[in-house]
Amino acid sequence: MICATLDDGTPDGQLARVSEDRTTCRIAPGMSLQAMLDGAEPAWSGPECRFDPAACLSPLPRAYQFLDASAYVNHVALVRRARGAEMPESFWHDPLMYQGGSDGFLAPTAPIEGDPEWGMDFEAEVAVITGPVRMGATPREARDAIRLVMLCNDVSLRALIPGELSKGFGFVQSKPACAFSPLAVAPGALPGWDGGRLHGALRVDLNGMPFGRADAGHDMTFDFPALISHAAKTRALAAGTIIGSGTVSNRDSDGGPGRPVAQGGAGYSCIAEQRMVETLLSGSPSTPFLQPGDRIRIWMEDAAGVSLFGAIEQEVAAWP
Amino acid sequence: MICATLDDGTPDGQLARVSEDRTTCRIAPGMSLQAMLDGAEPAWSGPECRFDPAACLSPLPRAYQFLDASAYVNHVALVRRARGAEMPESFWHDPLMYQGGSDGFLAPTAPIEGDPEWGMDFEAEVAVITGPVRMGATPREARDAIRLVMLCNDVSLRALIPGELSKGFGFVQSKPACAFSPLAVAPGALPGWDGGRLHGALRVDLNGMPFGRADAGHDMTFDFPALISHAAKTRALAAGTIIGSGTVSNRDSDGGPGRPVAQGGAGYSCIAEQRMVETLLSGSPSTPFLQPGDRIRIWMEDAAGVSLFGAIEQEVAAWP
Repeated sequence: MICATLDDGTPDGQLARVSEDRTTCRIAPGMSLQAMLDGAEPAWSGPECRFDPAACLSPLPRAYQFLDASAYVNHVALVRRARGAEMPESFWHDPLMYQGGSDGFLAPTAPIEGDPEWGMDFEAEVAVITGPVRMGATPREARDAIRLVMLCNDVSLRALIPGELSKGFGFVQSKPACAFSPLAVAPGALPGWDGGRLHGALRVDLNGMPFGRADAGHDMTFDFPALISHAAKTRALAAGTIIGSGTVSNRDSDGGPGRPVAQGGAGYSCIAEQRMVETLLSGSPSTPFLQPGDRIRIWMEDAAGVSLFGAIEQEVAAWP
Repeated sequence: MICATLDDGTPDGQLARVSEDRTTCRIAPGMSLQAMLDGAEPAWSGPECRFDPAACLSPLPRAYQFLDASAYVNHVALVRRARGAEMPESFWHDPLMYQGGSDGFLAPTAPIEGDPEWGMDFEAEVAVITGPVRMGATPREARDAIRLVMLCNDVSLRALIPGELSKGFGFVQSKPACAFSPLAVAPGALPGWDGGRLHGALRVDLNGMPFGRADAGHDMTFDFPALISHAAKTRALAAGTIIGSGTVSNRDSDGGPGRPVAQGGAGYSCIAEQRMVETLLSGSPSTPFLQPGDRIRIWMEDAAGVSLFGAIEQEVAAWP
């Protein structure tokens, strides 16, 4: 099953089922994706229409829960190295995860509004939507609870993060609204899905130039079932919970920090990582954070070049 | 307006309007509190029925957002003092706030299930529900966005907090599902509401004995409009956002850490604070955290003894 949510002016939008070739769709009139996840049976009685990704909201325009992890521990290790800090050994065994804001996600093509002083960055991620998960669920049970897979642009405000994290309570102001891909796809309809990870290049272009081609199936230290089980240790998770992978990040073949796409590497899934590598190699970063007018595009393709989830395509707008 | 949500088997429950004397209610058939906050007009067409707090879910059984603050900085200062740490001066000017789980709240009378090894504690708080808040809203705008006021038991797992916070990303496992009072009351229907704070004793009994009588209007360093404006700095807040005050905590009249109710003091709104005061006074804590069978009751009364929000009444149950 391939789902999308069309903008019909309501907070939860209109659920649509999209054809396998991603060109047409049918709606289940009056139903939202959350309602389907809650157990309602959709009646796909709408006429077959052309599917227009530009008419889409994020598959869940708002959700009851978004838990975002840092499952690519390579990314965390790089962040620490760039600032000369040691990463605790436990980070390789105990997932890092934060409770993210979920009350209103950006549409896949909505502008990212913010003050350039905040150090705006994108983070390209894979995310899953779960059904209900019982408290104490094992990774095996968690695996069976994965309903849909999508891509995420987890917008981050780099200039606000150090001050906020130093207070000890995680992110609030430094993680504004993020966006998801137009399509949310059932695991069974994704050839690259191995039950826990999604294999394939996560494509990121910045201003039309290739920026990231990291393989989402590589170097993911904790797979989605492990992340979901971690989240469910002390509480049940409701249907419609979104679990994010954190910034996708690949080690270079020599185990090093990797190279930009232009130099034949897999590149990066956020500007901060490219800046960290620049800092490690030359002592200071040279790539600026996002500025008004910058355009970010995030997508994945199958072997035949089909855009699996449609594309997140956002432009940065000055605010206020 | 006084609202409650009755358990009708659906995830969002059935919205009811409760009479001023809290004895009867009428439902708006098929409508949830979230739908009303989203702008739907409720038709209170149900027959007048006896209001039964035991039939209630939390006013929002699930929410798109729960941001919990630590607005009683006295509480934070005590925590730090008890472990010999300095509290940054900035904590008096910059609110401490975390993104809490909101995908499924406990009913006001539902058991608290958990492993006693986790160090289960209650935290009695005041919370508000907002309408939509624009990004960058001033405290003045935020004040006008407050729709309803309620009480919260923010369950905390003390044994899991240090390890989780040391990872730097805030609370996930250490803050399981919390519970809210049966009634959510419009600010205009609360004589103790001054536009930003709720005045009056927040009553907490543990196993039938008075444990806390702190005044929620005293020593609240940041009022709700300041907290909401803080949360909205970099993003809009959706209608139905819950903002918690954090554990209510009063200084003693001499500026000290306060005394238990049994010794004539205002007592405490969580076990951790009583244990901190015990540690400060005698070198070690003597009050244990919650054990299976313990009963916690949280409520507020007006001058005439009317229970303003009904009572959160929860018993601790062993798990698994």
